[in-house]
Formats: sequence, structure tokens, C-alpha cells
Amino acid sequence: MFPHLRLSGALLLSHNLKHFTCRTMASVTPPVFKPFTLTLIQLVKSNSDKPQVVVLPECFNSPYGFVHFPAYAENIGYTAGKEYDIQASVSESVKMLSSAAKEAGIWLIGGSIPERDEETNNVYNTCTVYSPTGALVASHRKVHLFDIDIPGKITFKESETLTGGTTTNYFDTEFARIGLGLCYDVRFPELAMIAARRGCHAIVYPGAFNLTTGPLHWELLQRARANDNQVFFSMCSPARDMTAGYHAWGHSMVVDPYARVLAEADENESILHVDIDPEPFHEVRAGIPVTKQRRFDVYPDVSA
Amino acid sequence: MFPHLRLSGALLLSHNLKHFTCRTMASVTPPVFKPFTLTLIQLVKSNSDKPQVVVLPECFNSPYGFVHFPAYAENIGYTAGKEYDIQASVSESVKMLSSAAKEAGIWLIGGSIPERDEETNNVYNTCTVYSPTGALVASHRKVHLFDIDIPGKITFKESETLTGGTTTNYFDTEFARIGLGLCYDVRFPELAMIAARRGCHAIVYPGAFNLTTGPLHWELLQRARANDNQVFFSMCSPARDMTAGYHAWGHSMVVDPYARVLAEADENESILHVDIDPEPFHEVRAGIPVTKQRRFDVYPDVSA
Repeated sequence: MFPHLRLSGALLLSHNLKHFTCRTMASVTPPVFKPFTLTLIQLVKSNSDKPQVVVLPECFNSPYGFVHFPAYAENIGYTAGKEYDIQASVSESVKMLSSAAKEAGIWLIGGSIPERDEETNNVYNTCTVYSPTGALVASHRKVHLFDIDIPGKITFKESETLTGGTTTNYFDTEFARIGLGLCYDVRFPELAMIAARRGCHAIVYPGAFNLTTGPLHWELLQRARANDNQVFFSMCSPARDMTAGYHAWGHSMVVDPYARVLAEADENESILHVDIDPEPFHEVRAGIPVTKQRRFDVYPDVSA
Repeated sequence: MFPHLRLSGALLLSHNLKHFTCRTMASVTPPVFKPFTLTLIQLVKSNSDKPQVVVLPECFNSPYGFVHFPAYAENIGYTAGKEYDIQASVSESVKMLSSAAKEAGIWLIGGSIPERDEETNNVYNTCTVYSPTGALVASHRKVHLFDIDIPGKITFKESETLTGGTTTNYFDTEFARIGLGLCYDVRFPELAMIAARRGCHAIVYPGAFNLTTGPLHWELLQRARANDNQVFFSMCSPARDMTAGYHAWGHSMVVDPYARVLAEADENESILHVDIDPEPFHEVRAGIPVTKQRRFDVYPDVSA
């Protein structure tokens, strides 16, 4: 299915392959929410010292360590709302992901890769999304950089080499509007609140929690985002490799709008196939109608 | 300890009784956060058809049903920041709660009672708070009315008889700043975000989830609010009484700023004593410093 391609933790969305169209921008009105299948592929990350043609949840073409990001960064040059010429791209990762999406006829949320901006020389942690025709249709630069220091447990400082993005992002398919974020972004409720209030039915954050923060908060954060916003919420992690410099939690997960965990991987290479049914999305919003009860006369709407 | 007083689900905060002072307004700078003991008393609610002198998490002086609220409503007449004359109060519940707090020398978050506003004739679901000297120091009118309809499970419509409050509220003690909300308010992240960003160390919502929403979301919502805001979060429920018109979930709970459940009652009458230690509050904010990493250049600050 993916010749010359190592899938290492990809998040794939498949639907009725005959009826896809590619939209380079989301329209104001979200599409009608129809059933689709959400597939999480959680495979082990390679320790190769050069980028591989693989698909991973976060930084799949680079060891996960801030010293590595600049060396592995690629110039993507995507601008939201503008047509992107895949053939002219200088990013090998983008071309590979595009080909994979086209060959398989799927929507592809391509984890993330370090991205170098040609003009500013800034490096970002960037998620790119591809339509079944191979078009690059959306990107998300991680807004909140992973700078944490839990003594004796985990210390990481993305801001040593990365710059945070400045936009919230989502994209439209024929079956749903889907919001984007990356890993540490999930600790900040606003991004998901904005995405949901702009009509997203599902929100997907590739991410790589670790053996400290994973057990503490990986499931809680996804269930909280799903519940508060009454959307499907999903994060896809690399599988755990204890020989790597960073030990990922794994446990890729899909949560429904009632905050019920529909599927969860363990820490090993694994594939999750989850049928996404719009019914609970509509049902919970009718039964517990928080989406219509917010008091924007008392506090501001962060999505306004 | 409380003669002539039936405690039925009160949430009591006790500290060093000799050093209390009463503040009628919170100052700009929160107090230094010191250790204190948080006590949850979860007792069964009476089915008496007239108000009892009891302390309950929510609507302790009224059957929990929207048809009952107007009949049981009392005129409180409290204005934030103004001295309140307990002796001149026409609210029996307020006078009882004040006496109980003074007699026991405790801070008392008095669950809630239906409150009728004298000028507008509106009825609110109102939490009142008393200092160890018996002063009424804060109140919170439930902002988000509990209007839900899960067919065959639970239907409730507070808005038939209640009006929603329009303010966020917290109060200062000698040991912590404490935020307030009521029950359904917990489904709306903004109130707790605002309280925490204004310096609250702990947030307490008296509440009464039911046998449908309790198992789904009671724990999740408290852990989510605690984790996203890195504060202690607690809800106190009435105990379950299957002979009452409304079947409360029970499971009063205290969660720490790591989102760890420190204590949880079952559905029966019970008392939780929980020592609140400021250490994890400071530790998690140093280790996972989300309180300093928010991107108010990308989205607005709801507390601004």
C-alpha cells in the first residue's frame, strides 16, 4: 500500500474514496457530518540519524530532541488558502506524504516535521495535511512549545530551537471539519475551544507524551477536550522505544463527544481502526446543550 | 457543635481559628497560600416540605426541583464588597449559616439556597460564604442554569423558574483565595479559568449531579478543571436518597493541581477530611509551567 514508505505512527482518515474533493480552505459553513473511519497507526520510531520516509505523530523525520530540530528542518513554504505546488516543493517529507496520501487515496494528517521558514530562519514544529489527491490542504505550527522541567523525571525545552506558531487551524473534508494541534497544545484549552466553536466535529493532535506526563494527563486531557467541546478528540503517539533518547507514552487514543474512550493502543506498535459515528456528536449536544448555553455576556468568547 | 442544625452535605474549611480575620472583598494580590484542612460533609438531604436549618451542597433548604425553588426562595440582599448586617437579614438560612460558622469558628461555603431578588423578583440559585466571625463575605449566583434533556434518563430545566447570575466570584481567607461556582457551572471552563487566573488556589463548586451525568462526567470535570488551571478543585454533593425526587450522584471529591483525586466519598452519608498542602500547587506550576506559557497573542485571555 505504501511502497518505499515506513509508516511509524501515522493518523489516517479514510472515507468513500470516490467522492473526495480537495478544499484548500475551509468554508464558513462546516460540511454535513457523515460517518467515517478514523485509523491510527502507532509504530515504532526509527533511530536513524537522517530523515526516513516515514509517517509519525510528531517530528517523524527527526529524533525528538530540541538539538536535532534545526538539522532536520525542511522548508515547506505553505500559505493557508493558497494553492501549493507539491512538485515544486523542496521538502522531501511533504512530497513523500503527498504521494502516500494520493497512492492510498486517503486524507493524511502527517504527524509533524521540523519546518524552517525561509524568510525568518525560524524553525517550527509543523503538522501538514494532505487530501486523497495528494494536495497539501492545511498546516499547523505548534503554538505552545514544550518547555517543562520536572526534576528527576523529564526536562525538555523546545523553545531552545523552535518558534511557536501564531494561528489556529482546521480543514474541511467531505465528511467533517477537523481541527489541528500538536501535543503540548492540548494543555491549553483555548485552541480546541476555538476549533470546536468554528464548527469542527473532530479534533486531532499528533503528540508524544512521555513516561511522566503520559500516565498523569494523556487520557484526561483528551477526555476533557472532547467533553468540554462535545467533539471527537484523538491523539496519536509514537510507540515506545526505550533505546531512543525520548521515551514516548504511546497509548494512541480516540475519545467520543461524551468523553468515552472508544479505542486505546498500548505502548507497542499497533493500529487502531475506529468508526466515527456522528450520532453521539448530535445526541450529546441535544441532551446536554452546553454549546447553546454559554454565557458570553459574563465572559468573552475566545473564538470571537 | 451545631445545635439545632442538621448538616446535610456541607463543605467546611477549617484553619487556625485564632488568626482569622474577615475580609468582605478580595484584594488584588492573593494571600500567601498556606496549608489548610478541607472538610466535606456529605449527608442525606431531607424530604421535608419546608425549609430546614441544614447545610447542603446545593439548594439545601428546598427539594431539588425547579417547581419548588420560588416557594423556597429567600431574600438575601447581599452586595459584593459591602458590609452585610446579618442581624437585619430576613433570610433564615443566612442567619443560620452565619451562626453555624461563628459557633464553630470556621469558614463556611453554604451550599446554595434559592434566592429571590427583592427588586426584580428574579429567583437565583445562590451560594453564600461565611467567615469564622459569622460575616457573609461572598456569594455566587449560579451562572449556567441546569437545562438538560437526555430522553429516558434525566430531564431538568432550571430556567423554568431561575435566572442565571452574571458574575464570577471568589473570596480571600488568611490561607488561600478560593473560587466559587455551582454544579452545572463546571461544564463551562471559563468560570474556573477566570478564577484561577485571578489568583485562586482552590475552587469549590457545591453541586448535585445525577445517576446519568455523575458516572459520565463528575470526576472528569473536576480533574479537568484542576489540571487545566493547576488548582485544587472540589465539589460537594448531597448523599443519594432514592426516595427523593432527584437522585444525587454523591461522590464528593477533592482533586489536587496535578489532577490526582485526593479523596472521594461514595453515595452515602460521609465526611471527607482532606489536608490541603500548597506544595503540589507550586510544584506543578514550576514543572509544567502552563500558567506562564499561554499565548494571549494567539487567543484572548478570558480573564482580562
